[in-house]
Amino acid sequence: MNFGSKLEMAVRQKHSAVCVGLDPRWANLPSAFTDGVDKLDLVTIADRTTKYCCEVIDATVEFSPIVKPQAAFFELLGPPGMQALGSVIAHARKAGMLVLLDGKRGDIGSTAEGYAAAYLGETSPWGCDALTINAFLGNDTLEPFVKRAGDTGTGIFVLVKTSNPGSGFIQDLKADSLTISEQVAEVVQQHCEKRDGKFGDCGAVVGATYPEQLAEMRKRMPNAWLLIPGYGAQGGSADDVAHGFDSDNLGAIVNSSRGIIFAYEKEEFAGMNWQDAVASAAQTMANALPKFHG
Amino acid sequence: MNFGSKLEMAVRQKHSAVCVGLDPRWANLPSAFTDGVDKLDLVTIADRTTKYCCEVIDATVEFSPIVKPQAAFFELLGPPGMQALGSVIAHARKAGMLVLLDGKRGDIGSTAEGYAAAYLGETSPWGCDALTINAFLGNDTLEPFVKRAGDTGTGIFVLVKTSNPGSGFIQDLKADSLTISEQVAEVVQQHCEKRDGKFGDCGAVVGATYPEQLAEMRKRMPNAWLLIPGYGAQGGSADDVAHGFDSDNLGAIVNSSRGIIFAYEKEEFAGMNWQDAVASAAQTMANALPKFHG
Repeated sequence: MNFGSKLEMAVRQKHSAVCVGLDPRWANLPSAFTDGVDKLDLVTIADRTTKYCCEVIDATVEFSPIVKPQAAFFELLGPPGMQALGSVIAHARKAGMLVLLDGKRGDIGSTAEGYAAAYLGETSPWGCDALTINAFLGNDTLEPFVKRAGDTGTGIFVLVKTSNPGSGFIQDLKADSLTISEQVAEVVQQHCEKRDGKFGDCGAVVGATYPEQLAEMRKRMPNAWLLIPGYGAQGGSADDVAHGFDSDNLGAIVNSSRGIIFAYEKEEFAGMNWQDAVASAAQTMANALPKFHG
Repeated sequence: MNFGSKLEMAVRQKHSAVCVGLDPRWANLPSAFTDGVDKLDLVTIADRTTKYCCEVIDATVEFSPIVKPQAAFFELLGPPGMQALGSVIAHARKAGMLVLLDGKRGDIGSTAEGYAAAYLGETSPWGCDALTINAFLGNDTLEPFVKRAGDTGTGIFVLVKTSNPGSGFIQDLKADSLTISEQVAEVVQQHCEKRDGKFGDCGAVVGATYPEQLAEMRKRMPNAWLLIPGYGAQGGSADDVAHGFDSDNLGAIVNSSRGIIFAYEKEEFAGMNWQDAVASAAQTMANALPKFHG
């Protein structure tokens, strides 16, 4: 089964389009994990980070089909952090969540092959179901990822319009009547059209913080899964992200990181056990997002 | 001392603008390293890869100021590969080479801070001197890298015009009278102007395979170090890369990966000990590149 169909099945099964973003910033972890740990002891920090992420996964697995570890926060812990990343990926898959690694990788052909083989597929060393990709180097650099995804039933999400304030610097520039984002989107849609099922292996990242562009991108890429970051802490609302769903209220997953994994810091969850707060935030978000028909 | 000045000093000391690209593809390693190793035994493969990379560094340290490990080929070996990367970086620094990690990282602000803190500076877990950066997400996403580089005496190399055949897909598009590459180059030069010394912390990647654009970019970024990939195996010649140097024949480092580290596969080095072949290839390349005056 191709990745697009796998993700559709998982979203239907969980009745949820929530993507849980794992950005395990040490300063925000519950004190039970961090108390007494030397800030230079990366081995212990990585161990505690693993434990925390696994418990977040256990708390959210009922309410979310997919988890998105942010590579930067594991790389920040050096080699022990990469061990942690491997353990967290394995735990999530075993628990029944798809794993989308947010690495924003991209390089010229032969190196892109290396990244694709590193991350995509059960037989790869990291064993992810999907990876975020940066296409700045050119559409030729997407080919090795698309091929690997097709061969292994995995997916990629290509950066099309990111959620940050300065994303327009390159992405909104218009050349030959289309913006850069629109030109990347055309390539994404072309890759999706070649696949079986409604949704292809090649998705797109389009931020919730630019809802008009999100609506336009939904139309431009009818067969692509959209990964929508920028919900919650970054300012995107449920109304904003609704523009990213198709007429069946499918085709998009919406990421929240801080809003879910650090929910225990919020007043509304005061006094609650940290894991219950995390579960509750994921459930609340799942209920707030558009629900598919049929 | 800022990174621009450190790199200048290193180039002058070694009389060489060669950047040794470490792309340790397992299939190309000398058979002494690979014989009898199970291709699924990533721990042993990573150990042998470390040993090989360290011996490449020892063979080339006399002829090159800087080494560029390609992150993909270490990530491809899973967590043991990341241990290997850490060991190789430490060995190179101890041997007296600057270390530029080719990771092409880039993300929104707070995540970019994570990547910058992960890789840049002696006190970071990986301890690199410099990192390659992808600015597709916007110029705001460069700020955390520029700040960290300034604070720690390290550098970044921002992708401006890459060496691959499809690099024009985004980079050559023209918007508001400048190509995307030119717009990124303007930002790089602005960051360099703010620093002491002739060269700033913020360099640019410009491929040897587009010599006219290389010459144009040299003029557009007079204070930026250029990292020039695409020499040798990808088709760039010594004449091509000469366009990337300034009037003192400074300001550029030229990367070669396969041409140096797998030199023993070439007919011209047949019968030579593998490490001597690697050393000889690095020395030959150093002599072929423009030599600085004064």
